[in-house]
Formats: sequence, C-alpha cells, structure tokens
Amino acid sequence: MSTFGNIFRVTTYGESHCKSVGCIVDGCPPGLALTENDIQPQLSRRRPGQSKLSTPRNEKDQVHIQSGTENGITLGSPIGMLVQNEDHRPNDYSETDLYPRPSHADWTYIQKYGVKSASGGGRSSARETIGRVAAGAIAEKILAKANNVEIVAFVSSIGEIEMNRSPQDAGFQNILNTITREEVDEVGPIRCPDATVRDEMVKVIEKYRDNKDSIGGVVTCVVRNCPIGLGEPCFDKLEAQLAHAMLSLPATKGFEFGSGFLGTKIPGSAHNDPFVSDGNSNRLRTATNNSGGIQGGISNGENIYFSVAFKSAATISQEQYTSTYDGEKGVLAARGRHDPSVTPRAVPIVEAMTALVLVDQLLIQKARDYGRSIVSN
Amino acid sequence: MSTFGNIFRVTTYGESHCKSVGCIVDGCPPGLALTENDIQPQLSRRRPGQSKLSTPRNEKDQVHIQSGTENGITLGSPIGMLVQNEDHRPNDYSETDLYPRPSHADWTYIQKYGVKSASGGGRSSARETIGRVAAGAIAEKILAKANNVEIVAFVSSIGEIEMNRSPQDAGFQNILNTITREEVDEVGPIRCPDATVRDEMVKVIEKYRDNKDSIGGVVTCVVRNCPIGLGEPCFDKLEAQLAHAMLSLPATKGFEFGSGFLGTKIPGSAHNDPFVSDGNSNRLRTATNNSGGIQGGISNGENIYFSVAFKSAATISQEQYTSTYDGEKGVLAARGRHDPSVTPRAVPIVEAMTALVLVDQLLIQKARDYGRSIVSN
Amino acid sequence: MSTFGNIFRVTTYGESHCKSVGCIVDGCPPGLALTENDIQPQLSRRRPGQSKLSTPRNEKDQVHIQSGTENGITLGSPIGMLVQNEDHRPNDYSETDLYPRPSHADWTYIQKYGVKSASGGGRSSARETIGRVAAGAIAEKILAKANNVEIVAFVSSIGEIEMNRSPQDAGFQNILNTITREEVDEVGPIRCPDATVRDEMVKVIEKYRDNKDSIGGVVTCVVRNCPIGLGEPCFDKLEAQLAHAMLSLPATKGFEFGSGFLGTKIPGSAHNDPFVSDGNSNRLRTATNNSGGIQGGISNGENIYFSVAFKSAATISQEQYTSTYDGEKGVLAARGRHDPSVTPRAVPIVEAMTALVLVDQLLIQKARDYGRSIVSN
Amino acid sequence: MSTFGNIFRVTTYGESHCKSVGCIVDGCPPGLALTENDIQPQLSRRRPGQSKLSTPRNEKDQVHIQSGTENGITLGSPIGMLVQNEDHRPNDYSETDLYPRPSHADWTYIQKYGVKSASGGGRSSARETIGRVAAGAIAEKILAKANNVEIVAFVSSIGEIEMNRSPQDAGFQNILNTITREEVDEVGPIRCPDATVRDEMVKVIEKYRDNKDSIGGVVTCVVRNCPIGLGEPCFDKLEAQLAHAMLSLPATKGFEFGSGFLGTKIPGSAHNDPFVSDGNSNRLRTATNNSGGIQGGISNGENIYFSVAFKSAATISQEQYTSTYDGEKGVLAARGRHDPSVTPRAVPIVEAMTALVLVDQLLIQKARDYGRSIVSN
Repeated sequence: MSTFGNIFRVTTYGESHCKSVGCIVDGCPPGLALTENDIQPQLSRRRPGQSKLSTPRNEKDQVHIQSGTENGITLGSPIGMLVQNEDHRPNDYSETDLYPRPSHADWTYIQKYGVKSASGGGRSSARETIGRVAAGAIAEKILAKANNVEIVAFVSSIGEIEMNRSPQDAGFQNILNTITREEVDEVGPIRCPDATVRDEMVKVIEKYRDNKDSIGGVVTCVVRNCPIGLGEPCFDKLEAQLAHAMLSLPATKGFEFGSGFLGTKIPGSAHNDPFVSDGNSNRLRTATNNSGGIQGGISNGENIYFSVAFKSAATISQEQYTSTYDGEKGVLAARGRHDPSVTPRAVPIVEAMTALVLVDQLLIQKARDYGRSIVSN
Repeated sequence: MSTFGNIFRVTTYGESHCKSVGCIVDGCPPGLALTENDIQPQLSRRRPGQSKLSTPRNEKDQVHIQSGTENGITLGSPIGMLVQNEDHRPNDYSETDLYPRPSHADWTYIQKYGVKSASGGGRSSARETIGRVAAGAIAEKILAKANNVEIVAFVSSIGEIEMNRSPQDAGFQNILNTITREEVDEVGPIRCPDATVRDEMVKVIEKYRDNKDSIGGVVTCVVRNCPIGLGEPCFDKLEAQLAHAMLSLPATKGFEFGSGFLGTKIPGSAHNDPFVSDGNSNRLRTATNNSGGIQGGISNGENIYFSVAFKSAATISQEQYTSTYDGEKGVLAARGRHDPSVTPRAVPIVEAMTALVLVDQLLIQKARDYGRSIVSN
Repeated sequence: MSTFGNIFRVTTYGESHCKSVGCIVDGCPPGLALTENDIQPQLSRRRPGQSKLSTPRNEKDQVHIQSGTENGITLGSPIGMLVQNEDHRPNDYSETDLYPRPSHADWTYIQKYGVKSASGGGRSSARETIGRVAAGAIAEKILAKANNVEIVAFVSSIGEIEMNRSPQDAGFQNILNTITREEVDEVGPIRCPDATVRDEMVKVIEKYRDNKDSIGGVVTCVVRNCPIGLGEPCFDKLEAQLAHAMLSLPATKGFEFGSGFLGTKIPGSAHNDPFVSDGNSNRLRTATNNSGGIQGGISNGENIYFSVAFKSAATISQEQYTSTYDGEKGVLAARGRHDPSVTPRAVPIVEAMTALVLVDQLLIQKARDYGRSIVSN
Repeated sequence: MSTFGNIFRVTTYGESHCKSVGCIVDGCPPGLALTENDIQPQLSRRRPGQSKLSTPRNEKDQVHIQSGTENGITLGSPIGMLVQNEDHRPNDYSETDLYPRPSHADWTYIQKYGVKSASGGGRSSARETIGRVAAGAIAEKILAKANNVEIVAFVSSIGEIEMNRSPQDAGFQNILNTITREEVDEVGPIRCPDATVRDEMVKVIEKYRDNKDSIGGVVTCVVRNCPIGLGEPCFDKLEAQLAHAMLSLPATKGFEFGSGFLGTKIPGSAHNDPFVSDGNSNRLRTATNNSGGIQGGISNGENIYFSVAFKSAATISQEQYTSTYDGEKGVLAARGRHDPSVTPRAVPIVEAMTALVLVDQLLIQKARDYGRSIVSN
C-alpha cells in the first residue's frame, strides 16, 4: 500500500496527471528546524530535464509544506507536503489507448484495478517518488543530527560498463569511505564517481538514446556512521527492510548488500570479516567488510553498502511489435523523446528510501535501548 | 520483529538451545484439511543431516499442532505449532565465550541486546526457520487449492559453478516451466536440476568441506500459476515483499527477480516483453518473460521467478585470526564438522517464505476484487 | 499515530493554524463514482457555525480532491484530499501563552512534544476531524453499494437530559430501526430524534451558553444492514475496533454498545438474545438485541448500536482559576464566545469513524470468505 | 486478529479443547530476570474454581516458558509460553450441537468460519485470555522497573450494587490513590475494596447462582505513576488504545475513563481540572482528575482510571427458549453449574491488557523522547 514505516512513517499520494502529488510524514520528532529549503534540493536532484541525458520534460516540482511546522520548527504532528502537477491533462497519452505498453504497468494495472488511468500505469509512474524524496529529506536531516549519518548513492554501472564493486577491491572500498554527494553531482548527470568508466557510461547512454532505445544500470549506496544495533530480527532484519524499500522503487530488478551475489563465490574463510580492536574505544571493528555493515540482520557500525539494479526503461522511442488489449497483433508507434537511462535520476530516490528505513529503525532501537537499560537493574 | 504478513500472518519463536521452536499461524482459512502430515515433509526437507554434504547433527523435528484444528480440519483460529529442541543445553558452545565468531551475529547481538545467549547469535540461528517452514506448508496448501499454484526452488549456483540463468536462455526458461520438487530432490542433496553443472557443484562443496571451509550459492525459485493482480503498490509491490521475505532469511546477501542484475545490461528494446494473445482466453500473455512475472509491482500471470544469494557459511572448521570481545588479538580455534554449504538446505525455506507472501497477497487481492465488483454498478 | 485501518486506510494531517488539513485514503476500490459532491455534505454537517447553538466561526471547508480519481471515477490509487485553512494566523491564541488551558491538551502536548503550537493543543483540535469525515464519506458510499448499509448517529443525551436508551425499550429500538439522517437534521441543530426531550436539551445548552459554560452529551449511532461476519477476534473484535475509533475522537470519555453499562444489571436469563427463525431465509435472527449486533466480536446481522460520551467542552467563556506553565496561581481570562456543546457536531464524525471501521472489516471479511470457499473443496 | 501491540507485541493461540493455549511475547527488553514464577501468580488469579462464587472447573494452568530466556534472564528474542489444556476432549459440549447458545459466539462463529468447533465459540472462550495474562505479567514487571508503575483493578459494581465511582467523590479517589492488589484479594473472591457494598455484591451473586442465572458487573482499574507523555494522537490516543484492549475482552459491553459517561453531565466549569504547582518539581499537577490521567490522548501523570462493563454471563444453568441452528423453536436444556459472575475473575485480565498497552506506549514514547532530544540542538 502507500504507507511505509513503523513509528516514522510516510504515506504518499499522486500519479502523473492529477492535481498534485505529495505525502504525509508522521512521527517526525518535534523541534526540528524545517522549511521547504531542506527538502527542495533532493527534489531538484530527482527532477527530470537536468541534462541532455535525461527526459526534457521540465517540471518545477516546488514543494509546499501544509502542516506540522510553525515558524520553521516541526511540531511533532504530521507534515503534509505537496507538489503541484503542472500538466495534469488526463488525456495526454491517448495513443496508448489501444496498446498496453510492453513491460510497463498498463496491463497489470487494468487487470488489478479495472480502470485505465490516463497515465496507463497509475502509481507506477516515476512521479510517485516525489513524496518519497520529500519525506526522505526530513529523515536525512534527523539522521545527520543523530549520529552524523551520511547517505550517498551513485551510479556504479550502466549497461555493460561497470565499476569494480568487489567488496575486496581497495578502490571500491575507498570510494565507499569518502564519496560525497557533491562529488557525485559535480561529475555531471551521469553521477558515477569512477573516472575510469564514467565517460564510457555517458557514451553508452548516448548510443542508446540515438538508437531510440534505453539501457539500465546499477545504483550503489553507502551509509556511513550508521549507529550499531539497528534492525529487528527475525523478519525485519535491516537488510530485509532495505531490500523491501529498494524493490518498491519503479524499474528495480534486484538488491544486494555487502559482498552480494559475488559473495556466494568467496569461501567462508575469506568472506568472514575478522574482528579487530578499534584502539581506544570499546567497540570492535572488522578488518574487512564483506558483511556490508550488517550481521545477523543488525548494523555493526561499519559502512552499510548495497546495490540496486534498475532495468532498461520500458518507455522507448522506437516501434514495438506487440498486441492490443484485445489481443490483436500490431505495432505500438514510436513516440517522442524519452529518457534513455533512468538510473542516474534514481540516485536521490535510493538515498531517500535508505533514510526512511534508517530513521525508523533508529527510533525503534532507541526504544529498545531504553527498555534494556531499565530492566537490567 | 517476529511476525510476518498482514491478514495471513506467522509469528515465530525459538532459538537453538531453548525448549522448543515454533510458530502461530493466524488468519488461516477455516475448513482446510490439515494435520502434521501436511507440514512434516517440508520440515524434513529443511532438516540438516540428510547427507554427507550437510551437517551431521540429526534433529528429528517432529511438529506438533497445538490449536486451530479439530478432527484434522482448521477452525479459522490461530494454529499453534511446535517442534521440541532435543538438545537444549545452553552451555554447549562455551568455547566461543571469548570470541565473537567472525561474520556471525554474536557481536551484533550482544551490542543490540546486551545479553549473550548460549548459541551466540540467538535468533540468527538457522533453527529459527522451522516456524517459517511449518507456516509455509500451510500457505502452500491453500495456494494449491486456490489456483493450483506451484512453488519450486532449486540450487542454481554453488561458488563459481553456475547454471545459466539468463532470462533469455531457453533451457533455463524450460526448467522454470517444468521443474518439480520431486525432480529437485531426486538428484540428491545438491538439489540442482541442471545435469551439466550438478556434479561439479557437489565436487566444489566436497572440496570446501575437505578444506574445512565453506562456500555459498544461489537458490532460484519459480512460482507457476500465480493469479494475476497480486501486489500492493506503491510500497508493497509484490517484488518488494518477496525481497523482504528472502532477505529476512539467515545468510542471504541478495535478491533479484526476472532478468535481475543481468537485466540492467539488456536494452529496453530487447528487455521489453511483447504482449501476445493467449488464443482462447481474454488474457494477454507475454512472448518473453524478462519481467519475471511482475510488472508495476503486480503479478501478470507469467511465471514469477527470482534468485536469492546465500553467502558462504560463517561457521567453518578451521582456525580464524580475529579478536576477542575485549579486542585482544587471537585465534578462534577450529571446531567440529560443519555444513560446508547451507544453500541446498535453503530450498524449502525459500519456498516457504514465497508461499507466505503469496497467500497473504492472494487474500488481500480477493478483498480488492470484491471491492471493485460492488462499487462499479 | 495518524493512520487508521488495515486494507482501507486513512492518514490525516493538519491542525488549526496551518495551510490546510486533509487526508490520504488508501485502498479505495477502483471504479467508484466519486467527486467532491459526495464528500461535501458530511463536511458541511460537521462544520461549526451552523446555528446559534454552536460556535460562530464560519469556515467554508470546501474539499479538493488531489489524486486517485479521473473523470469522477476512482482509480484504486490513493485519494489525496485537502481543505484550506482560511485563517492560519499562528499567533491568534496568544493570550494562552502563559496558561495551559485546563482539561485541554496544551500541557500534555508541550510535555510530549516540547513545542508549543499556536493552537496550543496541536492535533487535539476538532479541525483534525475534517480528514476523518472526508474519508468516512467515501467509506459510506462503498458500504451503501455493498449491502445498503445505513449509518445514522444522533444526540441521545445532553447533560442530565437523556433519551431512554435501554436496550429493552421499544421506543428506543424503534428509533434505531427507522431513524434517518434527514430526520436527525430536520429537527434542527440539536440532532436529537426524540421529541420528548429535544426541547429540553436545547434549553440546557442555551442555559450553559448564557452561563458562559459548557455541557456534554452522548451520541448514539446505529448501523443497519451490516453484513454478518465482520470482526477479527480475538484482539480485533468489531466492538474493540469501534471503541478504538470512537475514543480516538476529541473530547470522548466513554463507549458502550448494545446493552452497555446498563447490561451489567440485566440478568443473563433476560440479557441473552434468543434465536428465532427469519422465516424464509436460512439466517437466524435474535428476538431481542441486547448484544447490539455483535456476538463474540463478530457482527450477527442485527442492528449494531453504540453510544459515545462527549465531555463538556474544555473551552469556556468564563474565568478559570488555574496555574501558569510555571506553576504560578492565576486566572485564565474569559475569552470570546465558544460552542457550549460540541455533542451535536460530533454526529457526522461518529458516522465517519463507524464507516471507516466497517469498510475495512468488510473488505477483510471478503478475503476470509474467499479463503474459506477455496479450501473446503 | 491475534496479535496486539506495536514494538512490544503479544500473539496468542488456543481455545478450550485443543492441546495447549499460549502466546509469543515479542519485543521484550533483554536482561530482564524472568521465570515462570513471575507469571504464575496472575495466571492463578484468573483461574476459575477459586471459590464457591465461581465455576468449579479446576484447571491447573501451569505456564511453561519455551524460549527467549536463559538462566532466568530474557534474551530479547520472542518468549514462547504455553499452558497445557488438561481436558481437551473435543466432544464435550455435544448437547449444544443442535442449538446455538443465546448471546454466545456459537452462531456468529459458524457464520464467519463455517466450522463448528467443539467449544462452540472457538476463541471467544475465556480460556483464550491465558496468553494475555501471561504476557501482561511480563509487561507489568517492565513497567514496575521503569517507573514503579502500579496497575490495580477491582470490582466496582455487581448488578445493581455499585460503588460510588463519581470522579468527584473523595472516597473513590482515595481508593484509586491507595488500593493494592493484596487488598483487592484479601477481601475474598468478590474483589471489591468497598466494604459498604461488598457483602451485598456477594449476596447478589449468590442469588443469581441459586436462580441458575448470572449477573454482570463493572471492573475499575487504576494506573499509578504512569509516565507523562504516553499516547499517539490522533488515532492512537492512549484512551483509544485502552478502549480497544478492553473491548477485545470476552463479555465486555463498555469502557469509560475519568469522569466517563457521568462526565457528560458535569458542566465544563466543574469538569475542567485546574492546574496547580507540584511544589518542588517543574511538573504541574491537576487539582481534580476528571480527565482520568489523559488529556488530548496523552497521559498527564495523574492516576489513569477507567471502568469496563462486563455483561451477565451468557452461559446459564436454566432452560432457554430459543431456536436450533435450523430455525426450529425449542428449549436449550439446563446444563451443569456455571459461574454466576465472571466479573471478579476479569480483574487480572483487565490488569494484563492495561500493562500491554502501557509498556508498548512507554517504549514508543522513549523513541519519541530520543528523537526530540537529538533534533533540537
């Protein structure tokens, strides 16, 4: 459904062609300085039309806080937020009346809901993610204050062009340790921090764009300074919640954390992360981080990192041989220009969902810490 | 936490060294013929000690239904089930008192909970999965009655030895179309249906066993005859719930469905699944199935298939250079014999979690269908 | 928190002095004809300023649907709705800066949240109920289509002036059987269908108004044509969910259903409702209805009826001897005119919450019916 | 359904005639000293057969902890608990095969579930409450450690014999301030602390017992030392959660807190609780407590008190004119001896549900406190 989280929750609404899209953030701590200026930057980062690599449709996406703050301070009550849809003509996509778009949600939506929305796939639109990003921006601000938590996502592959993201690669671990959002953005809309593959990625996207085709990619995300102890075994292990969050995003095909699928090939003796002293503190560290910062479903204080696979966009500008809703063979005509790769735009959305998982788990863990503290005397 | 599902729910309890492990299944439809005989087979399939490939500890794991049935028929009330722990000596693992086992949950558990259980990792034990499998067996029976739903999981890789699981490989799709549990089991404990790699897989496991090491692998699962329309966008898309379910399993590192991570490399024009008429019925089919049976978060009636990465088991029989809880460098001594690959045993557990997701979504979708039917007149 | 319901859910936002108040309705069946005209009537019924019995502040309260419908038909996606706050000056109540208003939420809100909102009690404002009423109007429309469910609430007591609401009183049962919203409204803002006490109730309210005081009352609600089988034992019995819904309303002090507190005084032999044949149908009826339409937590098809106690409004226009936030004794000055009885205005709010409980339970029960139907063959 | 709570949760199973009844307590803080001895006293207090006032069926009801503790200390993992059913012959109540018992759950259960359990009403049996009481005993222990929270329930009316429970009665407030469980129990099975009505109550019960009839009553419960700030507006106000909890109990007909239904008759000027300084501390107190310790849905630190109406037991030992399941008129024969008043036995059950609500809210509020503390700097 459209609510995510337990004691810090977001509920979203809106599709491509309605009046507005938005969300309600419930359970935000009171006393937080918060204005639209805290939220707009991530919304702008997710906005299409930022470069020639992405779709030209330029939506302004200005967020308006409706409730839950006074004089720029949160009250502890639900924060309503909305972004107007500038273009809400519900008949815009009429050429798709006959054909369900292949690998879009048109057909499953009409099967499930029985009503064909103007946009075809209803809530499967990327525009649905605005509410997530707005809520995530609040979550991030809390996490930063709590423990200086840093969440940075970036593009790690486009098509066949891949960064080395082996957990055992020093360069990759170095990027995880140091990469900032500023660095991700300053290399341009490709949002890949690895100079050795970045230009090739751009070329791949341009090639598919010129072919009126699309290509997928992988977004990798790192969380630094995550408090120890987050995650709620056995069904709500931290990785399970992250996987849920990521696979709820449009166009995702997979999730892996730490060593991921590659980790299945590394023998236990090499995959196990030995413990080492942290020197001054009582805290143990691990010498390696194949675990990806989560052990037994619980954060261990090391970098949490994971990758999310985004398929090649289903909307392409070339003809497609397919069938009408009635089963008649036919050709879905080529249509306008479309984003050849949604992967770079997914970066702030992945960050937002990460923040939403973590802030909820952080608050819950503080309840656990309290419970533990009072019973043991 | 330890409850999973919405209107069909399982809540589990139990760790390695307590009196019993078990679960409560809530929301099971009344009138279902159900005895221990329906549940035991899957429990037996997950049981260790089935072959020289797996750990020798032989637990009988006989399930006892406590409530919720009379005369072999479910009442609609919660079904309590338990399996005795035969060996519940809480001091068995005392050699690990000094050392948190690397890449186990020992250290994170003590950080989160502050109490060291005899088993170290508490609920991170594989024994926790008994309740899931027992509940899943009930879910499967309902799904079979509802729509002849078939859920079959199998081993698709061990270490570097991999089946071809490209969505575009005809052999792989053929296996997905036809594989049965009987076929999975009859090839022996390796549970891989692909004769071209199966023997190599066994050799790999034996090699790591002989090295007192361990190796990971991938379990792939297919769902046939899944009703159309399951999944609850936008946060509870069907793939998001499956990912959550799978990543809640011990030792998992990743999840992908349909084309998965490989799908990021297939251009949209090839990745899009064209629609085709189903001939007699009104239903559209897709000519290919890169989507993995889910589009826009909703099942489309094609085979749902996904893969789950299991890391190399953290428990190995060789010495490990690591640190004590106090940060002193040292060597964690080698201990007894251990399962060199947990992947084959995960097969029934993956099936169980799949069934739990689907039965809950099926019931919810029937509520949706009803709602839709009554408002549209 | 601010979300209510399971598979039909409402999430609300907004307080007195922010930009807008509103809600997101999630899980509404697709295909329902729905425009603002379906929602406005109940919003208008809850609006203050309708008569000299209630507060003069006249808010227009026009609802605007943001999403989830196209061409007046629901899509199955979340329905965002909002009502502008015409007056959102956050400094209006500045005279209460020094004093927490007695029996208001000012003091507990500042204890819990640490931030004093302009309105003092934040979400304890009656304005928060707008989102509930808007959502309830949708729920009602579905229930009417499902089974011609009728929900009618009315004022059954004001101060000491009480309708006879004994479950064994024929006149009371007759009212429950026949009362309509039109009848409730046409007797004027007092909304009491009992002509024998109605005028006295008005006089009592006028007396307290003239005394710059306030007086409480009871709202009774009847549900006719509720389908049999709603309610989810053991923790989510239908009466438990109704009680939760009602006690979540501002100013409520109690809930009783069927015979209620009076039922504790009626011996079992008289309190038990004998079963009788319904004549043609297979369905049993009960000769009496002390049970209030719910037995064992499950609706039995008889009228569901219950009563909700509303305290005398905490906001009064006379001086109050109390303390400042700092504990200094003092007198909270008299302020403007205030509603001497909120009870009549609660009528549509009670109806809304009833509808929200029932539509959610109806959908869940249809899932149960389906489950039962498929397993028993 | 059968799960209650958010981050401290109980899930129960079991009916009258199955092997065992029990529960899983999830989210219990680790490090708590806990053995069966902590749980048994409240189970014994709810046990029938304690006096000639109650039913003679003597069940031993020994609880067995299955998991979640080691060496008498909780681990933080789910605590499985069970109590054997000594008598689980599923054919014991065969005389009710023809007749649904009036005002029992027999008929609604068969309507909802379609299966007639041996016990007729399935989970509507009082035996279902064992799991609640076991879980509540753990919750109480935590609350006592957290803030010395005291929860004491007692019988405040039997039939027409009522304690004065006006919020403005000094004697009643004095009882709320001082009553202990020991005092409640030492007056005998009637569990009423008011000597002026106690003997009459016993006589009333004996009269109905001799008449083969039953009589209802009211249980009042007080919570002392409840921390300030518990409750989650707007839908999960503390009173809403208490009402939900109480109305989920078998045989309940109503709930009121603070001034309750009587409060509707007290003018605002008298009903409002003036604030007064607490002397040394910063905390404000209220001079009166019509609010019942909750304002705006949030605990204010005063005594929380509420009352729960229990109907006259539906099971009586006299003939009843009613209908068979098939609608044939007939007489349901008198059967054995039955408890003429379940109200006194409800005392520990009301306490248990209160504790379950409060411990969950306490933990959540500590998460809120943390959130507030970190964002405001």
